[in-house]
Amino acid sequence: MVSKINTISTMPYKGVRDFYPEDMFLQDYIFEKMSSVARLYGYTEYGASVLEPAELYRAKSGDEIVNEQTYTFKDRGDRDVTLRPEMTPTIARMVAARKRELPMPLRWFSIPNLFRYESPQRGRVREHWQLNVDIFGVSSLDAEVEVISLASDIMKAFGAKPDMFEVRLNSRLLTNYILYTHLALPEEKAHALLKLTDRKDKMSEPEFREKVLEIIAEKSEEYVKIMSASSLDDLIALLPNSAKIEGVANFKELKRRLREHGIQNIRFSPTLTRGFDYYTGTIFEVFDTDPKNRRSLFGGGRYDDLLGVFDADRIPAVGFGMGDVTVADFIDTHGLAPVYKSLTTLYIGRTSEQFNVNAVQLAEKLRQKGISAEVDLSDKKVGEQIKTAVKKGVPYVTIVGDDEVSSNNFKIKRLADGQEEILGESAIADFFNAK
Amino acid sequence: MVSKINTISTMPYKGVRDFYPEDMFLQDYIFEKMSSVARLYGYTEYGASVLEPAELYRAKSGDEIVNEQTYTFKDRGDRDVTLRPEMTPTIARMVAARKRELPMPLRWFSIPNLFRYESPQRGRVREHWQLNVDIFGVSSLDAEVEVISLASDIMKAFGAKPDMFEVRLNSRLLTNYILYTHLALPEEKAHALLKLTDRKDKMSEPEFREKVLEIIAEKSEEYVKIMSASSLDDLIALLPNSAKIEGVANFKELKRRLREHGIQNIRFSPTLTRGFDYYTGTIFEVFDTDPKNRRSLFGGGRYDDLLGVFDADRIPAVGFGMGDVTVADFIDTHGLAPVYKSLTTLYIGRTSEQFNVNAVQLAEKLRQKGISAEVDLSDKKVGEQIKTAVKKGVPYVTIVGDDEVSSNNFKIKRLADGQEEILGESAIADFFNAK
Repeated sequence: MVSKINTISTMPYKGVRDFYPEDMFLQDYIFEKMSSVARLYGYTEYGASVLEPAELYRAKSGDEIVNEQTYTFKDRGDRDVTLRPEMTPTIARMVAARKRELPMPLRWFSIPNLFRYESPQRGRVREHWQLNVDIFGVSSLDAEVEVISLASDIMKAFGAKPDMFEVRLNSRLLTNYILYTHLALPEEKAHALLKLTDRKDKMSEPEFREKVLEIIAEKSEEYVKIMSASSLDDLIALLPNSAKIEGVANFKELKRRLREHGIQNIRFSPTLTRGFDYYTGTIFEVFDTDPKNRRSLFGGGRYDDLLGVFDADRIPAVGFGMGDVTVADFIDTHGLAPVYKSLTTLYIGRTSEQFNVNAVQLAEKLRQKGISAEVDLSDKKVGEQIKTAVKKGVPYVTIVGDDEVSSNNFKIKRLADGQEEILGESAIADFFNAK
Repeated sequence: MVSKINTISTMPYKGVRDFYPEDMFLQDYIFEKMSSVARLYGYTEYGASVLEPAELYRAKSGDEIVNEQTYTFKDRGDRDVTLRPEMTPTIARMVAARKRELPMPLRWFSIPNLFRYESPQRGRVREHWQLNVDIFGVSSLDAEVEVISLASDIMKAFGAKPDMFEVRLNSRLLTNYILYTHLALPEEKAHALLKLTDRKDKMSEPEFREKVLEIIAEKSEEYVKIMSASSLDDLIALLPNSAKIEGVANFKELKRRLREHGIQNIRFSPTLTRGFDYYTGTIFEVFDTDPKNRRSLFGGGRYDDLLGVFDADRIPAVGFGMGDVTVADFIDTHGLAPVYKSLTTLYIGRTSEQFNVNAVQLAEKLRQKGISAEVDLSDKKVGEQIKTAVKKGVPYVTIVGDDEVSSNNFKIKRLADGQEEILGESAIADFFNAK
């Protein structure tokens, strides 16, 4: 039934990844650290389909996302559907749907896959997974403290030292104050300036200055000066009234509490904007401090009016998203990646295929006691079977043949150093369980 | 920035599911049982993107799937892409891509989400998750024995008794022998008959007879008689040469070994066809034995030429797929569903918001010792905070106030029975860790 005329490529779709066992091992490692820290803080896992009604993204995101970067198509029933590019609209939808029943404060996390139509390059793929952590129902600074502490604890769980990353802070309220109150700019210009400022770190000082000048002729020098403030105090000196802005007023308290939590590097950064429209207060972004690679790792912030599009009442919320590709890059760069380990304990070979049944019986007895055992059912010679065990990374091997079947004793060999132990069948599980 | 004019629906896309914490708990429970049994047998997890090149499904699946049931669309670069409707083409692609490096026998599992454009109804959704278990490189019956044993062990891990389900067996070689050799039918008629036979259980005997007659006038009575054989021996009596067909010859051995493994109900079923083209030998399907609901639960079989479309050499393979919706229905029907349990150990309330910092400090100390603790950071009264803990299903609660801060002693209350224990701060983690 198979035609070999049209040979199909073995490549995955452009910009997405296959996860072979070694890749999956790393992915599982990353997800496990993320989940267990979130659970320590009392966060509960939720999930949803990658397929969402397209209208969910029309309301809130920046135009760029809806128009150019999503996977949006019509289903066979002529509905517009989108492969979710982010999780926040989904959690907002789910919370709005059961707003009355859900116990507040609500602490939820999820590790969804997200799609963006981008040109694939290092650290930028079309599908990535992203831990999303959100707390709903807390309007005080305690929510920011908790969420940033949690993010920092995940970094530590990956083995990161506190000086390997820094947290940059800003407030959307402060940015709005600068743009709309202090400089009194019309929305269009403010928006263009915000977009430009987001990329400030990627250009030279004169280039930034020139581009600001293109947008706002009159007040450009003042804007550049404000955006160059290197501390909150410097900024307040330039904008005395900003000290009274809600959120900004207790940035020092936030910094103090995060330092108590062991986060050494916390910087105020007036140029921090983050893309999304929906932030309403504190925004933060975590950066790698490696001098060769001061990448943004992940970020988040406060968004107190996310449920508005569902016609639901305001609920204060703080959250962040942390991507698997960025994290994998980070732990790789800093030499923190885990070594691949097979989760199988024992590889059972046979001197010939006639002992398959005996080998399987041994495996079944071990499995009943919780020991994972894989039986080589191939027609390979013993030496090749052992090589297979090594290639798979299974730590122990035993070979079943005439002697083993008649004596019911098995030689258990540790492949790492060749150490051997002869054990009666009933003692094998105990031997492994004691390890 | 939020307009309330266009209110967006809080419903998910038609036919897909939201996973609120209780749903996720069940999903996690199901996935955990599936994974841990697969791991006991030495299977390693792999994964891939839900987005695949559409051509992957054009080669092998039945026409119906490609034309009517997939989510296929053009990406912005004019590539045809499909949301995978099944995992087998993906694993075949991945194995073909690294055929030379991968250690055989290869044992892989995955729990992907799959999409089909269907009319949603009970047990039939547009997105479901499905455990896929596959062994490559074993041509002997040992592969069938292992895979069906593993499937049966997963059922037992869900609490199923051996008499709650039965395994039906058939062989594609036998079906082909009946259709092409014994009845000497042309491919078109054979195909139509196969499709009809797949639905035999859903129609009356006369209806089946009539529809067979519509397809093959001449030999219809003989076909009906063969398909009514209730045992392998009955069938062999009708088709003496079939006893020599590879695979069928050792069906009795397969039944014997599965019985040894504790599977009580094993039936030979000549009408078992399963949809996919790619089976080449044994096929099996597991049915619920509940008399009110003899549903098919899941199935699989041998497909030894799956890699052909990638122009790779043949590798023998046996596998099965087990869906989350069907499993959830089964465990629900048989009263085996787990009771929801919060994974958080302690809920920390406060007599007033001024003790937030103290409550957070207590939580942090507990988290450092591996105890999950959630702090109520709301402005609710104490009674409401305790109600929140109850609603969340957190088993223990403590309240931080003046007395607790000054004495550093905390009253830990078990919400299920109201039992209380007063413990010094440093003793709380030990108290929980000892449980």
